[in-house]
Amino acid sequence: MSHRPKILITNDDGIFAPGIYALWEAMSEIGDLTVVAPDSEKSAVGHAITLTDPIRVQEMNGKNGYSGFAVKGTPADCVKLACRALMKDPPDIVVSGINSGANIGNDIIYSGTVSAATEGTFLGIPSLAISLTSIKGGDMSAAQETSKQVVRKVLKHGLPSGILLNVNIPHIPQNQIKGTRLTRQGNLVFKDKFEKREDPRGKYYYWMSGEHSEDKEEGTDGFAIKNGYISITPIHHQLTENSFLETLKTWNF
Amino acid sequence: MSHRPKILITNDDGIFAPGIYALWEAMSEIGDLTVVAPDSEKSAVGHAITLTDPIRVQEMNGKNGYSGFAVKGTPADCVKLACRALMKDPPDIVVSGINSGANIGNDIIYSGTVSAATEGTFLGIPSLAISLTSIKGGDMSAAQETSKQVVRKVLKHGLPSGILLNVNIPHIPQNQIKGTRLTRQGNLVFKDKFEKREDPRGKYYYWMSGEHSEDKEEGTDGFAIKNGYISITPIHHQLTENSFLETLKTWNF
Repeated sequence: MSHRPKILITNDDGIFAPGIYALWEAMSEIGDLTVVAPDSEKSAVGHAITLTDPIRVQEMNGKNGYSGFAVKGTPADCVKLACRALMKDPPDIVVSGINSGANIGNDIIYSGTVSAATEGTFLGIPSLAISLTSIKGGDMSAAQETSKQVVRKVLKHGLPSGILLNVNIPHIPQNQIKGTRLTRQGNLVFKDKFEKREDPRGKYYYWMSGEHSEDKEEGTDGFAIKNGYISITPIHHQLTENSFLETLKTWNF
Repeated sequence: MSHRPKILITNDDGIFAPGIYALWEAMSEIGDLTVVAPDSEKSAVGHAITLTDPIRVQEMNGKNGYSGFAVKGTPADCVKLACRALMKDPPDIVVSGINSGANIGNDIIYSGTVSAATEGTFLGIPSLAISLTSIKGGDMSAAQETSKQVVRKVLKHGLPSGILLNVNIPHIPQNQIKGTRLTRQGNLVFKDKFEKREDPRGKYYYWMSGEHSEDKEEGTDGFAIKNGYISITPIHHQLTENSFLETLKTWNF
């Protein structure tokens, strides 16, 4: 690509999260940047879009030239709005992240970070989701380096239609990262539980909490991360389970 | 199954939508029902879950014995909460619908109706999503009959782990429905556009609107519906694109 690539940056932790700022910083070495991100945290919104409410947009100017559009909407809204209304030309690549917390196993179904990349893919734009396993932030340099490396490769090779890359980086010092593994979506699940509480007016409500299972299967995203590797998984959204169609035929509909 | 099956009913149009009432009516012939559904419309919320807010639950008693739990949350929240906190024993089956509007092609990624069934599947419970192509409601009898037929077959045969059924019914008179097609997720997409408006205080906002593309490919969900057939698609959520892993290896990470 001879011209400077146009990079759309988004996330689900919100436009003021440290992760998106770190991504912006890293990407500024590579291309011309447009930041369009939710105005507040939108974790676990999955592939939600906003149909029943108007979508507000506010221009934001931060430190060191960090600027963009803060959207009262979901990550998928942000990508749609950026490509259809806010940007003069569609971007060459959509990069979503750097998420605070891993997006591996079943979690990717709930992930706003991944859904932004999914939306980019639906719009025909090479897209990737980048997550760091720490949910407390911290040192982003390894994630920044990885982002640059993967984005450069995607800009060089392109991605086939309908496929995005889901990238996870273990939160350990950069010199302890053992390398990169090309992985499959593992079987890690979130074992949720609900805590019932009573509010000051005597009414009940619930908090969802829980913990993740462990992924012990070699070749998965979770296994790579646990063993100190960066994980890259190619993801598609053709959900048909072809293998079950034959069985269904015997059900005599 | 010799005992009366326990059926969890949910949707994304909200507990007061005509579709969920029609489903409740149909299912009451088959099993013991628990209704747990959003307290207001949650269309296109995808697989959102509520982590950052408390989840309120209110008991609801409607006409003809229709009762249940109205949840200030998403369809996925409803299924989690029902199975983990509200029901004494987990249900034998989760049925989500009857949605007002088709859930076919790429739309299933955005669909709250499908995501409720996905959540049931993640929890190890046979699950299905049922949608009627009309977005204006209207006669539900064909959708009710289909729901009963499919639910009875699922209760008899079970479903393999990780697979749900996505059922769509064309909104035409029941005697004009030509039969049932076992289909794959088609390529129908929502071509969105944004309308920019100014509010009375001079601030801008956007409305998302648009229209669906047409699905002309035989064998797809959209093609079946368009030609007067009920469409049943088996759906999974293992999103790894294995075919691209080999190519990625040549990228030299």
